[in-house]
Amino acid sequence: MTATATLLISCPDQRGLVAKFANFIYANGGNIVHADQHTDFAVGLFLTRIEWQLEGFHLPRELISPAFNAIAQPLDAKWELHFSDTVPRIAIWVSRQDHCLLDLIWRQRASELAAEIPLIISNHPDLQIIANQFGIDYHYVPINNENKLEQEAKQLELLRQYNIDLVVLAKYMRILSFDFVSKFPQVINIHHSFLPAFVGANPYERAYQRGVKIIGATAHYVTADLDQGPIIEQEVVRISHRDDVADLIRKGKDLERMVLARAVRVHLQNRVLVYGDRTVVFE
Amino acid sequence: MTATATLLISCPDQRGLVAKFANFIYANGGNIVHADQHTDFAVGLFLTRIEWQLEGFHLPRELISPAFNAIAQPLDAKWELHFSDTVPRIAIWVSRQDHCLLDLIWRQRASELAAEIPLIISNHPDLQIIANQFGIDYHYVPINNENKLEQEAKQLELLRQYNIDLVVLAKYMRILSFDFVSKFPQVINIHHSFLPAFVGANPYERAYQRGVKIIGATAHYVTADLDQGPIIEQEVVRISHRDDVADLIRKGKDLERMVLARAVRVHLQNRVLVYGDRTVVFE
Amino acid sequence: MTATATLLISCPDQRGLVAKFANFIYANGGNIVHADQHTDFAVGLFLTRIEWQLEGFHLPRELISPAFNAIAQPLDAKWELHFSDTVPRIAIWVSRQDHCLLDLIWRQRASELAAEIPLIISNHPDLQIIANQFGIDYHYVPINNENKLEQEAKQLELLRQYNIDLVVLAKYMRILSFDFVSKFPQVINIHHSFLPAFVGANPYERAYQRGVKIIGATAHYVTADLDQGPIIEQEVVRISHRDDVADLIRKGKDLERMVLARAVRVHLQNRVLVYGDRTVVFE
Amino acid sequence: MTATATLLISCPDQRGLVAKFANFIYANGGNIVHADQHTDFAVGLFLTRIEWQLEGFHLPRELISPAFNAIAQPLDAKWELHFSDTVPRIAIWVSRQDHCLLDLIWRQRASELAAEIPLIISNHPDLQIIANQFGIDYHYVPINNENKLEQEAKQLELLRQYNIDLVVLAKYMRILSFDFVSKFPQVINIHHSFLPAFVGANPYERAYQRGVKIIGATAHYVTADLDQGPIIEQEVVRISHRDDVADLIRKGKDLERMVLARAVRVHLQNRVLVYGDRTVVFE
Repeated sequence: MTATATLLISCPDQRGLVAKFANFIYANGGNIVHADQHTDFAVGLFLTRIEWQLEGFHLPRELISPAFNAIAQPLDAKWELHFSDTVPRIAIWVSRQDHCLLDLIWRQRASELAAEIPLIISNHPDLQIIANQFGIDYHYVPINNENKLEQEAKQLELLRQYNIDLVVLAKYMRILSFDFVSKFPQVINIHHSFLPAFVGANPYERAYQRGVKIIGATAHYVTADLDQGPIIEQEVVRISHRDDVADLIRKGKDLERMVLARAVRVHLQNRVLVYGDRTVVFE
Repeated sequence: MTATATLLISCPDQRGLVAKFANFIYANGGNIVHADQHTDFAVGLFLTRIEWQLEGFHLPRELISPAFNAIAQPLDAKWELHFSDTVPRIAIWVSRQDHCLLDLIWRQRASELAAEIPLIISNHPDLQIIANQFGIDYHYVPINNENKLEQEAKQLELLRQYNIDLVVLAKYMRILSFDFVSKFPQVINIHHSFLPAFVGANPYERAYQRGVKIIGATAHYVTADLDQGPIIEQEVVRISHRDDVADLIRKGKDLERMVLARAVRVHLQNRVLVYGDRTVVFE
Repeated sequence: MTATATLLISCPDQRGLVAKFANFIYANGGNIVHADQHTDFAVGLFLTRIEWQLEGFHLPRELISPAFNAIAQPLDAKWELHFSDTVPRIAIWVSRQDHCLLDLIWRQRASELAAEIPLIISNHPDLQIIANQFGIDYHYVPINNENKLEQEAKQLELLRQYNIDLVVLAKYMRILSFDFVSKFPQVINIHHSFLPAFVGANPYERAYQRGVKIIGATAHYVTADLDQGPIIEQEVVRISHRDDVADLIRKGKDLERMVLARAVRVHLQNRVLVYGDRTVVFE
Repeated sequence: MTATATLLISCPDQRGLVAKFANFIYANGGNIVHADQHTDFAVGLFLTRIEWQLEGFHLPRELISPAFNAIAQPLDAKWELHFSDTVPRIAIWVSRQDHCLLDLIWRQRASELAAEIPLIISNHPDLQIIANQFGIDYHYVPINNENKLEQEAKQLELLRQYNIDLVVLAKYMRILSFDFVSKFPQVINIHHSFLPAFVGANPYERAYQRGVKIIGATAHYVTADLDQGPIIEQEVVRISHRDDVADLIRKGKDLERMVLARAVRVHLQNRVLVYGDRTVVFE
């Protein structure tokens, strides 16, 4: 598979958008391999993802952005351009639980996630051993209410130093400050409930208490509001009266692994377009 | 299939319960066709359902209760006794939407629900025509904040008059008063969300706004607290950015029909045991 | 919602297809409300669905086909053109079971299926009563191995007479002849198994015998090969050892209703593109 | 949790079975923590699982079997007795794919599988490195049509030597001989299709060719007939036209991991009772 370029575009709906964007690719000799669009009529927004092969495309990479900008600006479009051979760098943040971490590493090794994982950050030393096993740097940054600001500064410094594109909170279990999120907005979190049910702490315990018959997990982008960010993926599993809290936690682990991995995968493939509090996931 | 008797029992956990209950059936010549039990170790409660054939059972029906009581009382057990040939009578309460009503009638006609449906109550006249079609009495009891108490009295009188065992709120869309529920506690409601997400009004609109990837429906017993009663059944369906609110409502209709029908069915089969805010559904 | 036109196109993959098709719409003043495409790289085929508003479109309806043909022919494209305000006419074929029939009628009445249902054909007289109830013509065409050819001629004549666009086999339970299918190829069938498991008769019985833990239903276009046509939709439900054959049949009914309705709906919305033995369903 | 004993019993249905078995436990001072039963009326067979705490049970372990036999024999019952603190020993057999192997090891380490994994056998040397990483013995036993019998003898010898209770074929991709299975019948296999669809080789390729909309995986006990053994667990996942064979394989991996792990778990908990070609899984 040769390298591809992908445009993610959102702009006010109007006639001719598909034609204009497709013409831009075609006029420059590009071969579209994936194109999908969606119009949100409620807000009058057109959203599209176009992916084309760079082989045979006349424009050199560095000229694509300026050339496309000339089309996008009059349309008042917001857009991102990505190249498939630019491998994003992920920092995985963990606390004490290892299942999501191991799963992400396994999938990256199995080529399901096209990314590098050079960095693990944790507020606990426990999972250092896994980092060692896979040759990933592990930084133990203990955090509490008193030292939060300075420790977040340390974390941001690590992200810069390792040239990180995406932070994945793989059961990190702590809230990021508003300041952190505004400085580093590319963060995906896995919440162990079917949001918006059971926002916050101990969702499995609360799901058990409520006597629900199905539990879930939710992967979302992190915003300053706890568990309120745009949802990327959700999944559920059936439970019964036979399942106690420990069973919910065990069954939930499988959900968490699966949902987080799917969300990270579609993000890495530049299939997720955020607008307002919502996402379009172009499958 | 010959008639059966079913005991639903809950009592503090202790040694010998299975033996004692099984011996009661066996000593009287009964043949158990279904027995299931569950111990909730968190609260130390033993819950069981035993169903046996009445053919060959030595005790006449009217003596089963007093005989079993002699066993249950020393164990501090709560219990119910049901006979499979006693056909419960259902009142279906509706507002303007017909899908759950039609589905319940269809299933009753198809022998999926072992019950009679002699009565439909509605706060709107719209669905009278369906009642006529199937020969079911339809009572239009318009209700508002001013006349609620007297109209609920009228509703209770109808339930008595028609000898109703179970009220099914098939998209009734109004809240029953605390007083009503304490006078007639056997009420199943369908809520068009995956509880506890989106308690209250307009759940599909709110699910859309939140950008969830899965929607659900919940059937539960009605208590005085809105959408807080013990959950009997839940089901979900995947949605995408392509689904607007109208699509959620359409997809939700299928969920609502399915979930409500399943809940009513297991209730009618005496498979649901409520304790605290939870249910055990003995499948 | 104003009327729309929809093109379903498949053609050998090549550069510029998206641009060419979009330009055709745009150049004639059309506003695209849905566009989706898929490339099957294994066979080098480009498949697309484009829907645009007719309001403001400069070409009169009768000129769209010839105008588009001038674009399509050099590309060796196969295509269909549909207008959203042309309401297709469905004939539902049944045997003795009523659940799929009732469900389709109910959905049509609830505006979930944009079609007319003027005709029911059956090899049994049993469901005449339902046809009467809803004011649909019912033709009893008993069929056996001896009279098959002449009876199929009668059925074809009815389809012509009623101007039918689509036949839905809603548990018709008989095989159409090769001759019939070649004369009237627009036929959707519901098979009560998860194809290709349990092709042919008595799938629930055989699923029970095999001890599967999940059962399914499949909606597919009918071809001359039994249960081998292109699959439109499938769904499954979990079963357990507690479910006997009667339970499988009961649970299966819900699957059958749901799967058939979804398949008919996407077909009526011109979202299904068949190529080879496969379908693309543009959601 | 103190140690428990579990009886898995199947016997011809007759009056008093629940009472007899429960009395045996109660009379000896046992506290039942789980009891479930099922009657297969089609074949007149009663199947039950009873688990009770050994603490306070008067009979010493070595006398339970003879004592219970006195009850079971007149009833013509088949039965197994297991103790929860006897940790079964698993041999995992693999070929070249590591995902099921890694998943099983991870779950065993996470205490989801109460077993030891002292042995990995493979017909390829590739996964030796994983065995080393986790300190598990790895035996490379290359096998082909010529050397099958002698290599199976070697494999059987290894199972004896390592005192193995259960063989898990974690994508072993080769067929065991009738002779092997009769000598070592405790074997669980994961088949990468929704059986009975796509028995045999290349199920994902064939699922893609057939154009199914859902794929599945099946865990079953191995018998001499290929992919015909009693099914323990199945699961499915939805696919679309966008998924090519590589996507099916990727999505299937998650199914395979999940389904195999669940099947091994319920087997290890002595929750699976096989009769004929079927299983009862007591949840």
